[in-house]
Amino acid sequence: MSLLAVGTLAFDSIETPFEKRTDVLGGSATHFAYAARLFGPVELVGVIGTDFPEETLKAMSRAGIGVRGVETAPGKTFRWAGRYEADWNTRHTLDTQLNVFEHFDPKVPTAQRGARFVFLANAQPEVQMRALAQMRAPELVVCDTMNLWIDIKLGALEELLRKVHGLVVNEEEARMLSGRRNLFQAAKVLLAKGPRFVILKKGEHGAFLLGRDVRFALPSYPVEDVVDPTGAGDSFAGGFMGHLAAVGEVTPAALRRAMLCGTATASFCVEGFSTEGLERTDRKGLDARVAELASLVTP
Amino acid sequence: MSLLAVGTLAFDSIETPFEKRTDVLGGSATHFAYAARLFGPVELVGVIGTDFPEETLKAMSRAGIGVRGVETAPGKTFRWAGRYEADWNTRHTLDTQLNVFEHFDPKVPTAQRGARFVFLANAQPEVQMRALAQMRAPELVVCDTMNLWIDIKLGALEELLRKVHGLVVNEEEARMLSGRRNLFQAAKVLLAKGPRFVILKKGEHGAFLLGRDVRFALPSYPVEDVVDPTGAGDSFAGGFMGHLAAVGEVTPAALRRAMLCGTATASFCVEGFSTEGLERTDRKGLDARVAELASLVTP
Repeated sequence: MSLLAVGTLAFDSIETPFEKRTDVLGGSATHFAYAARLFGPVELVGVIGTDFPEETLKAMSRAGIGVRGVETAPGKTFRWAGRYEADWNTRHTLDTQLNVFEHFDPKVPTAQRGARFVFLANAQPEVQMRALAQMRAPELVVCDTMNLWIDIKLGALEELLRKVHGLVVNEEEARMLSGRRNLFQAAKVLLAKGPRFVILKKGEHGAFLLGRDVRFALPSYPVEDVVDPTGAGDSFAGGFMGHLAAVGEVTPAALRRAMLCGTATASFCVEGFSTEGLERTDRKGLDARVAELASLVTP
Repeated sequence: MSLLAVGTLAFDSIETPFEKRTDVLGGSATHFAYAARLFGPVELVGVIGTDFPEETLKAMSRAGIGVRGVETAPGKTFRWAGRYEADWNTRHTLDTQLNVFEHFDPKVPTAQRGARFVFLANAQPEVQMRALAQMRAPELVVCDTMNLWIDIKLGALEELLRKVHGLVVNEEEARMLSGRRNLFQAAKVLLAKGPRFVILKKGEHGAFLLGRDVRFALPSYPVEDVVDPTGAGDSFAGGFMGHLAAVGEVTPAALRRAMLCGTATASFCVEGFSTEGLERTDRKGLDARVAELASLVTP
């Protein structure tokens, strides 16, 4: 297993219909890592400010997350604040403070440049490409992105798409990036932009994988008590990549199984604030949920 | 096979983002029947006005749909007009004219009172119960309903739910009837109201079956070009019940397979206006799509 993720470590302030939490641990790389570590070791590349508690980094290490690639820069850690409406599907961003992430220049430690599996979490496409350029010859590179970059960095993003093997986006991003409203058409257009497979994340409605030789549609795991959906997409990616890195192959069968793993992992994420839901589970709990999900969807 | 459906025959006027059609054949029983007849014979109980063309009834007969239970009453046939927004998920009802359906008193022909499989399409719960009371000893009775009856006829609807084996509702109806926002919780509450299983129809996001001894979640079939979603829910029910009536059993395995059949059947419905999409296909086309759907969702 050799899995590396590049992305944000952050502090989130979150309002749900039921509760409000301030400055909880968040960030795309953080959620990805707490998900992926259920499958094996994972290394992070990111940046934190001088306000990031040493104890939190140590807790990540103890959880099996490699933080040698997490650089400390003068200034404050990235901060995000958001509010969810009662339907959970509507999220309002209340505040974004890039802080040290604004001038993030990813430096992949030499020892980790040979990682076989790489996840480029949402960031400016040039930053994602700079990280990728440092890797030796990864077998599988998967990236995420967001509406902002589709809007203002489309050229760079399309260049990135020609260099990655997989793209993971949500419905809105898929529609923006493809110019198609129909999601199946959108996935086909995205596939033509370079990657070998595209995954559309549809939140509570599940996920859809379209590859050159594989198609797989999966509903979400039926979570009864959603606490906080923040990080569900990155947790999905963490479970998905974690499984592939653990089995060391990217066959159609492995991709289908990885979709189950990603979906099950994300279901733990939304059952708690921050990384609490993911931290409360272990490999046994995860395997049980993957099996339950498989039985729920097998015709 | 002995399948009977009670519901509306109607004329629909439909506006989609792309096209407008006036007075096309519609109605819950109509869509159900054009779906179910792909699996075997189906009998309808409903009412039409004197404006309903004799030729249309004959075409239904030729398509394998029994219309002996379709009564002609003085007056005009039920009419509905609606408009879909570009996302297909938002539907505005522009006009509803109950006409002869307002005083519909279902009369099940004696020869059909022994039907083993019965679908009670959306209607006033008392009307559904009057139809049901005429049946001898059906093995499987499934009903639909709508927000209006949950609002103004809750007592009668809950009485009906204690007399049926299955309930098919959409997300909004499930939430209203259960008082729960979370769909999995909603399904559990509905199950406690009487039926042996509950199906939540989620449109483009698929369907979810919760029974006492079976759970099955299924995404929708990826239709690339939606033409008109009207009747998709009743077509789903038609494919679902059609399969069960054809195999003559209601085991967990049969219910799962019926979900695939319903979903595949509904996908043909949305590919055309009125019953055009369903009329364009045959059992071979349907079987191919069921197989494709099974392969799309099998982990």
